[in-house]
Amino acid sequence: MVKRPCSKLLRISCRDETGLVHKITGVLYRGGCNIVSNHEFVEPGTGAFFMRTGFEGGSELAELRREMVAALPAGASIDLTASGSRRIVAMVTREPHCLGELLLRAAHKDLPAKIVGVVGSRPDLQGLSESFGVPFYLASTTDCSHAEHEADVRRLLGEIAPDYVVLAKYMRILSPQFVADHAGRIINIHHSFLPAFTGARPYQQAYERGVKIIGATAHFVTSELDAGPIIAQDVQHVDHRFTARKMAAAGRDVEKMVLAKALRWVLEDRVFVSGNKTVVFD
Amino acid sequence: MVKRPCSKLLRISCRDETGLVHKITGVLYRGGCNIVSNHEFVEPGTGAFFMRTGFEGGSELAELRREMVAALPAGASIDLTASGSRRIVAMVTREPHCLGELLLRAAHKDLPAKIVGVVGSRPDLQGLSESFGVPFYLASTTDCSHAEHEADVRRLLGEIAPDYVVLAKYMRILSPQFVADHAGRIINIHHSFLPAFTGARPYQQAYERGVKIIGATAHFVTSELDAGPIIAQDVQHVDHRFTARKMAAAGRDVEKMVLAKALRWVLEDRVFVSGNKTVVFD
Amino acid sequence: MVKRPCSKLLRISCRDETGLVHKITGVLYRGGCNIVSNHEFVEPGTGAFFMRTGFEGGSELAELRREMVAALPAGASIDLTASGSRRIVAMVTREPHCLGELLLRAAHKDLPAKIVGVVGSRPDLQGLSESFGVPFYLASTTDCSHAEHEADVRRLLGEIAPDYVVLAKYMRILSPQFVADHAGRIINIHHSFLPAFTGARPYQQAYERGVKIIGATAHFVTSELDAGPIIAQDVQHVDHRFTARKMAAAGRDVEKMVLAKALRWVLEDRVFVSGNKTVVFD
Amino acid sequence: MVKRPCSKLLRISCRDETGLVHKITGVLYRGGCNIVSNHEFVEPGTGAFFMRTGFEGGSELAELRREMVAALPAGASIDLTASGSRRIVAMVTREPHCLGELLLRAAHKDLPAKIVGVVGSRPDLQGLSESFGVPFYLASTTDCSHAEHEADVRRLLGEIAPDYVVLAKYMRILSPQFVADHAGRIINIHHSFLPAFTGARPYQQAYERGVKIIGATAHFVTSELDAGPIIAQDVQHVDHRFTARKMAAAGRDVEKMVLAKALRWVLEDRVFVSGNKTVVFD
Repeated sequence: MVKRPCSKLLRISCRDETGLVHKITGVLYRGGCNIVSNHEFVEPGTGAFFMRTGFEGGSELAELRREMVAALPAGASIDLTASGSRRIVAMVTREPHCLGELLLRAAHKDLPAKIVGVVGSRPDLQGLSESFGVPFYLASTTDCSHAEHEADVRRLLGEIAPDYVVLAKYMRILSPQFVADHAGRIINIHHSFLPAFTGARPYQQAYERGVKIIGATAHFVTSELDAGPIIAQDVQHVDHRFTARKMAAAGRDVEKMVLAKALRWVLEDRVFVSGNKTVVFD
Repeated sequence: MVKRPCSKLLRISCRDETGLVHKITGVLYRGGCNIVSNHEFVEPGTGAFFMRTGFEGGSELAELRREMVAALPAGASIDLTASGSRRIVAMVTREPHCLGELLLRAAHKDLPAKIVGVVGSRPDLQGLSESFGVPFYLASTTDCSHAEHEADVRRLLGEIAPDYVVLAKYMRILSPQFVADHAGRIINIHHSFLPAFTGARPYQQAYERGVKIIGATAHFVTSELDAGPIIAQDVQHVDHRFTARKMAAAGRDVEKMVLAKALRWVLEDRVFVSGNKTVVFD
Repeated sequence: MVKRPCSKLLRISCRDETGLVHKITGVLYRGGCNIVSNHEFVEPGTGAFFMRTGFEGGSELAELRREMVAALPAGASIDLTASGSRRIVAMVTREPHCLGELLLRAAHKDLPAKIVGVVGSRPDLQGLSESFGVPFYLASTTDCSHAEHEADVRRLLGEIAPDYVVLAKYMRILSPQFVADHAGRIINIHHSFLPAFTGARPYQQAYERGVKIIGATAHFVTSELDAGPIIAQDVQHVDHRFTARKMAAAGRDVEKMVLAKALRWVLEDRVFVSGNKTVVFD
Repeated sequence: MVKRPCSKLLRISCRDETGLVHKITGVLYRGGCNIVSNHEFVEPGTGAFFMRTGFEGGSELAELRREMVAALPAGASIDLTASGSRRIVAMVTREPHCLGELLLRAAHKDLPAKIVGVVGSRPDLQGLSESFGVPFYLASTTDCSHAEHEADVRRLLGEIAPDYVVLAKYMRILSPQFVADHAGRIINIHHSFLPAFTGARPYQQAYERGVKIIGATAHFVTSELDAGPIIAQDVQHVDHRFTARKMAAAGRDVEKMVLAKALRWVLEDRVFVSGNKTVVFD
């Protein structure tokens, strides 16, 4: 079982300036907080400052927040939260390996989240979802336009109101409007080491190019296909004996592990988005 | 010290047909040859058959070859060779890590080749080459056109007549004619996991895309830039703390190891080219 | 979905002698068999010969077997089988990650086996097993001796008669007699890169030693603890921030993937045991 | 070329207490220092606090040091240094790959150190050293006792007075007294993933055990053989086709890369020793 490693969490992003860490730790120190973990990073090109601090005890969060606002430059983004489990929805089509991985981990407290629903564009994974006691919602793509399908999904997400939506091998492209409405809250697993092999059938593309490694990429979804901020990537070696089908089979192992890792980082509030990149305090 | 693992080598490529392995091993058996290693592969899509067999003893190679030609379908490519060290030329510009790796390995019998010359487009690596007793030839690119530079290189290679040319961070693009004239004999190291980041400044491209892995690709050079048959690839994890410069530093370690591995496979006759792919019997 | 790659399979092990491959492929050729995959290996130290050949069509297996016996040296081990799914039993204690991985894969045809039962030394994983429709048998270790527990297990396995028994985080040591009675048919996942950290609490040992990599080992169980033939191993990097508990969490990912990989190889008849080692034709 | 990433460096280790980071950053802030990198870590079991901060500008180091001593608990270890290249001596026997790697990197500014001498227990690597312009000292082990050999080495190191001694495949065991006299300043590369295969001939041991991974370990040398604090480890997959000799050949690549990585971390002052472990701020 993986516990969130601290009971309270501070996340700050702002422009860097001299003495920031001293000021921030000063507020925590005077507030009687006990720091149990701390990461900071200043992005060289942009001068953006990111800090994630886990702490215990101390003043009320509202009080700390007031002090922090007073101490920091105007415009700083300041999150102060007590830790707690998140609610996520998984969207799927037919392939079970990513959904199964998430269901298993969530069921056995190996992911700090509750999967509150699975939305399928096909009915194939209803049994898998329900065997873990998770409601399955069919937003069929048969006999309806993509717009109608997306309206169904939108309505379902509106009712469920999850913290994050995980595209766990959901094989359709969401509209820019849909993505904009859920900005920063949709995580996708793409079955290649992006930016190689964007778009459809990446394993077929990889096979045709004759690569010796295949990979997978977990990323936030933005309106540009396969171009959102990358959270995690991993690869596996292949050789001439791998057909496109065998590459896909081997790739599934990479996909589910990369997705699980990226999702944990997001759920533990370890990920900051900076432009089209991520800062991950693992 | 790495020894070539057998004293004689048979390499066959042809269209697959039933009984091929039986026929080939029959020729070897009747010729009194002792097989010490054997690999075969039939490419699913094309039905192309590849076989590499190391053996000792037996009839004269010319005699075996006659028997093999008689036993195999017309048009089969049959190589029968006694093993021996190859002669290679390295082409470089400024970066020393790949050249140094090759010089060290060749000097200490960790590569089955003799580096018989280094051709530099700049004089920077003359000292490194000569410290290993390897002649350095300057084919300058200063105050001359690329065509003149390439003519210099062509003349040098004509005189040295190496078995293979290794582009060990040679930062120029060879003309299609040059490549065609040395088809299948030029190996390049590209500083990305192709097909991601073709062309110039791949680490800068990788940095801008925010990838979490960088890589390197050793491939045969063809007339299409960065599109030749891939021999070996490897990657390394990076994170948000890596600037483009730091990615390049980390990448150098991958580059030199991938190049050395691919080159060893080529020199040990383990690599077959099949269309735009390679079959590597490692 | 992973298919067994051929409809018939030949496995041979014997002492090497000149012309073996020619003789074996001759039997197949004359029997009208179409070879679709082939691996052979001669162990340098012992001169033991191993061959695994997938083929289609041809004579009856009994007929081929007679021919093969006649062609090969006395004492050769010859297996000729039509492929088919295996029946396995998983033994567990409390940790769900390995069992869950196997159940998911088997349920979705990503493992060529049917899990016909789960035997637990505790009741913790009954729900997980049954959610996949797999019978769970409690062989409790509470209020009974280890011998009584083992007698229960023995009786259950006698009734179920599986092809293989998989110790999927079964945290007890089986007696030499039990192991001998199921020789070559019990696969265990050990939570370290053996031979480092045999015995109990390997992650605690790893933490105390301050290692920078942790790992997992899938192996056949023999009467000597953690000393059986290794089938597969993998590792993961850790650093000073990893407590023993965090190492264990990270290690679970390695454990389940290594176990699944090793088990697939065993179920696809790719593994030969040679003394205390394995030959794996992957 | 790798640059040390900042012009001044603060390293602190002490017992943890509330407000430490705030106090330390306060001294730097009031001293006008600009922090460019920062790492801290509190060891869970021991409560030991480690911090490494790179900074530019600000007061004189002596002045900062006085302020820091006043602000921190008694007994805190405080290092304040301007960065600069270190002087190292490599000790070798016969194998060239690790020495070659270090010589190449140092020659091309890919290691923040000057190799001021190579001490060999045999003359084999004199040519390699001198081709890079590095003096070679023979401390022969022929016709003399180990004590006499060690006295030679001691005298040489006394004259050269390096910052660190790197055992780059030096195949002898140094006496506890020698190790004690150079405590924390001797780095060794061991050719296994410790604690597996301590002592002699680890690849032969690995071969006999039938492992599927081999590795290498860079560690500080202590009086107990192969038991000092581990700085870095890495591994490589092998299979049944690897003889002990082929494992050794493959292992050499891991050895030299692990040693180079560990040494860079040490030379960049990224490594703290905590009991028998290391904290590495990479």
